Amino acid sequence: MSRAAESAHDLLIRDGSLVVVTGAGHVLEHQDIAIDGSRIIAVGPTGSVGGARRVIDARGHAVLPGLVNCHSHAPMSLFRGTADAMPLQAWLAWVAPYGGRYDEEDVYWGALLAVCQMLRAGVTTFADMYFRQDLVLPAVERAGIRAFLAEAVMGGRAIGLRGTPDQQMRRAEELARTHNGRADGRITTGVAPHSVYGCGEGLLREVAQLARDTGCRVHTHVSETRREVDECVATYGRRPPRVMADCGLFDGPTLAAHAVHLDEGDIALMAERDVAVSHNPASNLKLRSGVAPVPALRRAGVRVGLGTDGAGSNDSLDLWRDCFLAAVLHEWGDGTSPASTALELATAGGAAALHLDDRIGAVAPGMKADLGLVDLERLNLVPATDVARTLVFATRGDEVAVVIVDGRVVVEGHRVLTVDESEVMEQCRRRARRIFGKGAIA
Amino acid sequence: MSRAAESAHDLLIRDGSLVVVTGAGHVLEHQDIAIDGSRIIAVGPTGSVGGARRVIDARGHAVLPGLVNCHSHAPMSLFRGTADAMPLQAWLAWVAPYGGRYDEEDVYWGALLAVCQMLRAGVTTFADMYFRQDLVLPAVERAGIRAFLAEAVMGGRAIGLRGTPDQQMRRAEELARTHNGRADGRITTGVAPHSVYGCGEGLLREVAQLARDTGCRVHTHVSETRREVDECVATYGRRPPRVMADCGLFDGPTLAAHAVHLDEGDIALMAERDVAVSHNPASNLKLRSGVAPVPALRRAGVRVGLGTDGAGSNDSLDLWRDCFLAAVLHEWGDGTSPASTALELATAGGAAALHLDDRIGAVAPGMKADLGLVDLERLNLVPATDVARTLVFATRGDEVAVVIVDGRVVVEGHRVLTVDESEVMEQCRRRARRIFGKGAIA
Repeated sequence: MSRAAESAHDLLIRDGSLVVVTGAGHVLEHQDIAIDGSRIIAVGPTGSVGGARRVIDARGHAVLPGLVNCHSHAPMSLFRGTADAMPLQAWLAWVAPYGGRYDEEDVYWGALLAVCQMLRAGVTTFADMYFRQDLVLPAVERAGIRAFLAEAVMGGRAIGLRGTPDQQMRRAEELARTHNGRADGRITTGVAPHSVYGCGEGLLREVAQLARDTGCRVHTHVSETRREVDECVATYGRRPPRVMADCGLFDGPTLAAHAVHLDEGDIALMAERDVAVSHNPASNLKLRSGVAPVPALRRAGVRVGLGTDGAGSNDSLDLWRDCFLAAVLHEWGDGTSPASTALELATAGGAAALHLDDRIGAVAPGMKADLGLVDLERLNLVPATDVARTLVFATRGDEVAVVIVDGRVVVEGHRVLTVDESEVMEQCRRRARRIFGKGAIA
Repeated sequence: MSRAAESAHDLLIRDGSLVVVTGAGHVLEHQDIAIDGSRIIAVGPTGSVGGARRVIDARGHAVLPGLVNCHSHAPMSLFRGTADAMPLQAWLAWVAPYGGRYDEEDVYWGALLAVCQMLRAGVTTFADMYFRQDLVLPAVERAGIRAFLAEAVMGGRAIGLRGTPDQQMRRAEELARTHNGRADGRITTGVAPHSVYGCGEGLLREVAQLARDTGCRVHTHVSETRREVDECVATYGRRPPRVMADCGLFDGPTLAAHAVHLDEGDIALMAERDVAVSHNPASNLKLRSGVAPVPALRRAGVRVGLGTDGAGSNDSLDLWRDCFLAAVLHEWGDGTSPASTALELATAGGAAALHLDDRIGAVAPGMKADLGLVDLERLNLVPATDVARTLVFATRGDEVAVVIVDGRVVVEGHRVLTVDESEVMEQCRRRARRIFGKGAIA
């Protein structure tokens, strides 16, 4: 048996520009990455890594860890291009009746459209919050992405598929007990109490108990708007993070989306209880919420990742746009590179926020093979003098040529290989017409 | 002779979704657009417009006026991906030495790269400010775009191609006297005094005289940063717009880029003197300048368009991103639709800002045939329920399939037809390597 055959592994990514996304950030030119099964087994200068059954030529490409989208409502991709920019509370009222028209297949196809888009842009993991994750799950399995799926829990009228809080809690328990670790471990499960104002203390306590009982994680909305905070203080005499902590919601790993309106006490509490934050700058701008104090959160040691939110409030679902916004909206201070920091948030930061940094968020031996190849030979990326700055300030998602999740090539030639994109688009067009009608939106 | 032959015109855009960008904005479905020579000669329901020598099928596409990029430094596309986010003054100091390394062909190829990108994203007209517009002009002619080219004038050291202010003034005069109306009228010429702080009163007065003598237009930077305003007040006892007005710079049509730090008096002055504004939100965020008071400018009756600025401060040169930012950064008030307003700024608003609204900025009979077709059957645009909102909140530029300028198809199948894109990219890569070196940037 020849030496090449002895050392043969499944896949070799050859001669790419490897983007190291942590610390000050830097790029290693002419790197090979060897993948066997679902994992990276070796990284080194081109030619040093040995033979593979399949080789992907990465010359002229940036190779980086798959992006992590820390906050989405994937089935809401059918809402794309319906709502104008407006404040959150007006938007929530506007969305509800249309959401009530969703049937089970709408949830599945809407999620699949979002997942296809995310994969095409190099997102390899996403954190989702919606009702009926049992219908999102098959979309995740089919497309081959990695996901943290949290079943939404919310008070109020039991319109459409949402059901009553009791039904929601039973679904959340079923998800946590039955589906955690599904799809070869690509799926992590959780419970998603909507917010303090969406649940109230009683339901938050029930959710906290469920999370403790099942060991599942929590994904929630925290302090998205000033009004939310003011009303919370008026009702409970405490700010939203304190109400959540008092209900036991921060007893296990919790992911807090938005976290825009925080005071120093909120930040200290979230740091102390290791509550992670999903920073969603595009959605926060469109819904007039403001800009989250991300530099202060980072200085306090809070895990921070980036999220798109759903297509109802961030129609593009392009995490690269959020990455750009993260670089330009904040005063990072102290010589921190905005570009490097934004790229870290979009990858390693998101992996840490989801407590998945033992397996994703870096291109290194032993890590899961979740990565993307960005074609730098494009009009809008040339000359790519500094690869990281080019990616953060100029990439739009459509330059991602190859995406690998769990060792499997799921995007190649800018196409999703695992799903029929045309079928997904046709299904979603038809379903959106039924839900929104023709010219029915205001 | 058959009736079809009698009525035959050059080009028919058949059965598109026509986006009306003014007023509240709306979409007319199933519209045909007939083009003869450089002009639109008819617009009407599909089938009503008669035969043409060539037909472009626009089903599944939004048809809209070509975008107008009101502020750019096209040759600076070689700077893409070099600078991190930093304040303007630090950025200017950082840029200067590299700009000094430009040779004549760098200006040409850099401009051509920018022009190709703009065309691909549906920009059919751009306003440029740089030294040596005589070298940008052939790129404009070759690619087939429409342009307002203004020769930069600035004090300080005569590094590189920049030359002395005297040389700059002679070039500006030559450009205005010789090249206005070139390329079948696609080129308008102007003079571009950099700013109050870049020129001083003496040079501003000379520029104003030149503009009066030649009848050419003025393109300048106004009140981009708070520091600029403070230093101007400390030096001249007046704010930048007043200094410019007193120097005679507002005596003819003037385009003011940025206009971020304005007080009520500035806005009233600019409205009274009909000074147009290019709003450049992405660049203003990256260089920490702030957000221009665009709603107040619009209420005062100021002409406002959108601009990318150069690739040194807005690496993507994607006017769609600026359009998104214009929709989400401002409180428009009074029931104005942010999406419709942003789309108007990107098209008709820009045409008015350049005083070209007699010929561009609308798809209507008698107007120049400058328009773009956006493919709505894409993962990131489906279901396109409301076309205008989908365009503003989700388009990234790569969905533009066909672009027509002055009646000529210059982009088709997402490719620029008039230029060899590969040659442009290879030239620009090579030139950027020479200018920036390998790993030489900080």
